[in-house]
Amino acid sequence: MSFPVSFYVLSVCLGFLCVMFVCLWSGTWRGGFAWDGSFLQFNWHPVLMVTSLVVLYGNAIVLYRVPLTWSRWWCKRAHAGLLFVAMVLSVLGVCAAFDFHTANNIPHLYSLHSWTGISTVALFTLQWFVGLCAFLLPWTPLAFRARLKPLHIWMGIAIFILSLITSLSGINEKLLLTLNGRNGSNTKPYTTLPAEALFANSFGIAVVIFGLLVLKLLFSQKWKNPESENETDRPLLTDAR
Amino acid sequence: MSFPVSFYVLSVCLGFLCVMFVCLWSGTWRGGFAWDGSFLQFNWHPVLMVTSLVVLYGNAIVLYRVPLTWSRWWCKRAHAGLLFVAMVLSVLGVCAAFDFHTANNIPHLYSLHSWTGISTVALFTLQWFVGLCAFLLPWTPLAFRARLKPLHIWMGIAIFILSLITSLSGINEKLLLTLNGRNGSNTKPYTTLPAEALFANSFGIAVVIFGLLVLKLLFSQKWKNPESENETDRPLLTDAR
Repeated sequence: MSFPVSFYVLSVCLGFLCVMFVCLWSGTWRGGFAWDGSFLQFNWHPVLMVTSLVVLYGNAIVLYRVPLTWSRWWCKRAHAGLLFVAMVLSVLGVCAAFDFHTANNIPHLYSLHSWTGISTVALFTLQWFVGLCAFLLPWTPLAFRARLKPLHIWMGIAIFILSLITSLSGINEKLLLTLNGRNGSNTKPYTTLPAEALFANSFGIAVVIFGLLVLKLLFSQKWKNPESENETDRPLLTDAR
Repeated sequence: MSFPVSFYVLSVCLGFLCVMFVCLWSGTWRGGFAWDGSFLQFNWHPVLMVTSLVVLYGNAIVLYRVPLTWSRWWCKRAHAGLLFVAMVLSVLGVCAAFDFHTANNIPHLYSLHSWTGISTVALFTLQWFVGLCAFLLPWTPLAFRARLKPLHIWMGIAIFILSLITSLSGINEKLLLTLNGRNGSNTKPYTTLPAEALFANSFGIAVVIFGLLVLKLLFSQKWKNPESENETDRPLLTDAR
């Protein structure tokens, strides 16, 4: 297996590992899932955000770097499709947190984590719709598309880095607020590094390694698909394939 | 002023803004500085870490992208020198936190923030010494230096992204632990977004914008100094200039 392919396989495996980590954390350590405004609804928040904005997003942005035998037309479809699923899941993830806050009289958007998080989701949604109009719909002038492409790529990378920053501060925040060792808490404090803290910290480290691997794949010039340089090819949504 | 130069000037200004933000936060909102194991010693931690691992580090890694009139020899000196100062300050910053923990019976290295933080400082120290041996000392074979350069660049970027991740989770952690609204606390809780929280959250956003600006400067191929492509030039520490 060649070097870029093995890197890609490793990043896909690490992505699965991150999803497993967050599902186990929410599903087992934090008591499972519901959609009733309780802590169990909040448990959807980390699962949906990490699955969408880190794992699906990361896999979608390296598609053009992977030596697939797919045509550029299929790469574009997969890129836009994966990001659409990621966008829907991330909005659901935000709703899970907001519903939990409302039901428990907790103010929205007070922490730095929430500030970077809401900015990430807003920028991602904007980026997806601009990307749809500019690169997939047939009426955008090709010259405009070529001019927009560097900004689209840079915004995509910036949003991914914002996702990593937000995920790590979110995991840290959840552990600080939950494993607080106060009276009435049935968990050991975070400072004593109980099994849950070890598990969730390891999950955070897996997210970082996944993110750096994705960025490594992205920035390696030698893995760049030469075909992807040309942004004057026909848009996706024309009749002829 | 050309586009890359104005971007660089903006990043330098934002760097100063970040240092001002963190000095004001620690110096005014958190009560000032000391080196006596108290909270006032901990106040050095955010100041030293952000100044070293974000601002000095960020400025050091974009040096090769800035259209300076300096020779490559001077760029190398400035790059290594700035990073040396950053390394010393970051180690002092870690000591400030460790001394505070020891004096107050708080365990070291339990939070995810501390895990990413200690990894960042360890990787940075390793990277600096490997960089010194490989690129500045005269006895390293030129072929080895050329092979090492892509890894050196990638590790440098990864360490910077780790610094951003760690800084944001650290600011968030400090606010959650300090503005906790418990009995005995003389501050309003973080959830009510008092002035200090607004100030520190804005500081976090400034750090993110600075980081993304530095990465934008780094990854723009058109701003790359063509001279810096050649890694077979003579090392820094030879007699002849």
